[in-house]
Amino acid sequence: MTFTTEQMRFWSPEVRELEPYVPGEQPKIQNLLKLNTNENPYPPSPKVVAAVEAVLANQADALRLYPDPDATALKQAIAKQQQVDISQVFVGNGSDEVLAHIFKAFFIQKEPILYPDITYSFYPVYSQFFATQTKQIPLNDQFEIDVSDYAQENGGIIITNPNAPTSVALDLEQIEQVLKANPDRVVVIDEAYVDFGAESAVQLVNRYENLVVCQTTSKSRSLAGLRVGFAIAQAHLIAALEAVKNSFNSYPMDRFAIAAAVASFEDQAYFEAQCQKVIASREQLVSDLTALGFEVLPSKANFIFATHPQHDAAQLAQQLREQGIIVRYFNKPRINQFLRITIGTDEQNQRFVDTLKTQIL
Amino acid sequence: MTFTTEQMRFWSPEVRELEPYVPGEQPKIQNLLKLNTNENPYPPSPKVVAAVEAVLANQADALRLYPDPDATALKQAIAKQQQVDISQVFVGNGSDEVLAHIFKAFFIQKEPILYPDITYSFYPVYSQFFATQTKQIPLNDQFEIDVSDYAQENGGIIITNPNAPTSVALDLEQIEQVLKANPDRVVVIDEAYVDFGAESAVQLVNRYENLVVCQTTSKSRSLAGLRVGFAIAQAHLIAALEAVKNSFNSYPMDRFAIAAAVASFEDQAYFEAQCQKVIASREQLVSDLTALGFEVLPSKANFIFATHPQHDAAQLAQQLREQGIIVRYFNKPRINQFLRITIGTDEQNQRFVDTLKTQIL
Repeated sequence: MTFTTEQMRFWSPEVRELEPYVPGEQPKIQNLLKLNTNENPYPPSPKVVAAVEAVLANQADALRLYPDPDATALKQAIAKQQQVDISQVFVGNGSDEVLAHIFKAFFIQKEPILYPDITYSFYPVYSQFFATQTKQIPLNDQFEIDVSDYAQENGGIIITNPNAPTSVALDLEQIEQVLKANPDRVVVIDEAYVDFGAESAVQLVNRYENLVVCQTTSKSRSLAGLRVGFAIAQAHLIAALEAVKNSFNSYPMDRFAIAAAVASFEDQAYFEAQCQKVIASREQLVSDLTALGFEVLPSKANFIFATHPQHDAAQLAQQLREQGIIVRYFNKPRINQFLRITIGTDEQNQRFVDTLKTQIL
Repeated sequence: MTFTTEQMRFWSPEVRELEPYVPGEQPKIQNLLKLNTNENPYPPSPKVVAAVEAVLANQADALRLYPDPDATALKQAIAKQQQVDISQVFVGNGSDEVLAHIFKAFFIQKEPILYPDITYSFYPVYSQFFATQTKQIPLNDQFEIDVSDYAQENGGIIITNPNAPTSVALDLEQIEQVLKANPDRVVVIDEAYVDFGAESAVQLVNRYENLVVCQTTSKSRSLAGLRVGFAIAQAHLIAALEAVKNSFNSYPMDRFAIAAAVASFEDQAYFEAQCQKVIASREQLVSDLTALGFEVLPSKANFIFATHPQHDAAQLAQQLREQGIIVRYFNKPRINQFLRITIGTDEQNQRFVDTLKTQIL
């Protein structure tokens, strides 16, 4: 929909310039194989369903009451699972909201914030929304983050680890190098995909007063439908996030989301088992695609980033779509010959590989 | 918790100055009578519970998938109930989030935005958060909004109707006066409490291209625990809100919230019956308090604003608390001799009146 200049006069001038984030599509097509939005192929813990049933059974009347604005029960469950103090936990309505609050809380500085040129495509949107100064740092030719690039004057740093859409991870030593080079600026490690094989920087939080780690329940905990994200940091950084959150929306977590997420964090065994299944499926898929001539970046995520020397990526994505399989294609410089493919179940991955082999390649 | 200047160096400078909103307290005390946060004394429609049960039964596996980022099912249900087109509906994570997006979308202008000096205490917080120019317009001596005060240069106007915490409502003719006086600026009518007897400005939306009406499911639909708010306006204004929302958080509504709110909007009969019960209880309470010597402002809300010529309001609030009854007291100029009292069930209101009569006055 487009509007006249006259109609646009009502908008705040800066809002007329916004270029919003475009989420991966969520089509409603029968028998579609959806490998485009990095969702988990397995359902959440059965204890999540039981927890929501318990809300309905015991507290349905309580829906009329505001939830706990601090979501204390959820912070406690996260603190226990992550082995930190509750004062080191911040929760939000999906990690996208947590990231938005992070930009506001720490990144509105005179110097430019730094992030890779190829990374989560919401970061440039936040940069524009909060009018941060920004400098994008190119990945190297292997699509890796070179941490020595982040030892320059800046207003803050955000790094996705493993990075998206590349799937490539840094190790903790490299992250410590960034933290040490920037003692006066906040370094955010966005760990949306960390549970699929990378090392979490949460274990560094008590040693670095400038570290914020952001995670989500949307991928490894199969709760994308629930909208629960969180950040772990020392209390003086969490307090900035709370000040921002309480100046924006006091009650972002509803009663169902709080109860369901608590149940997820309390079922560590289920969580670990599902992550291991995804990792095993990933290794099989990488092997199968390599056999078909794909080059696949080394993945520590629940997706892979792959290119084929003889086949145009946009065309492959289109051919897959015609066969009822959706993967994510980014028509952007440097990565426009890659496909980002979410790890499915073994059966789903097999359908994907078979389709490539018999119908396309 | 306080932090050292050294620890605060990580915060964005503007965030160090924020004075966040303080929600009404949610104490967990047995047998407490909670008349402090304007919640509905009745549970939501039984169809809300059934809808969440249906999500668990049919779509528990779907929790692993992102929700519809546009919450189309919910927008459709609201559009039908409000008799507007779906392009005229915006939804958010509680009306507080909707209001935050409204400030960003329309109010960042060179001229000051206008709102009453006594109104929803989140507005000054948003003003600071979004660095809007702001001018507060005093209510008149009867604690009424004088709409002729809003015919002056401005960057936008927001009026709560009925106003909070005063409970006093404008009629539609007065609202049209504000709309006509400001053809080039957005006028927001925040109708959090409109369903308890005031006239909704939604019926004016198709005639005024500068009108945004904001409502919530937290009060009249007994869904404070769910966090669902919405705005109704012409499509060119909704588009600004969507641009802001999609630059901040693509998926603010979780699967349970969407399903539960849809069920609420589909049960109009239950909704109307509960509103009528609250209105009847309010009239009885006003009559009882007047008999005890209170002066009560004329209320169209699910709360009343009352003062007693012979009793200090802060002291009354404290004495009530000692008897297990919490009301809201604002220690602010002009209103520091008033109590804001949420309408409870008839039984709850009777306990409140009896406590005043036998223990306090």
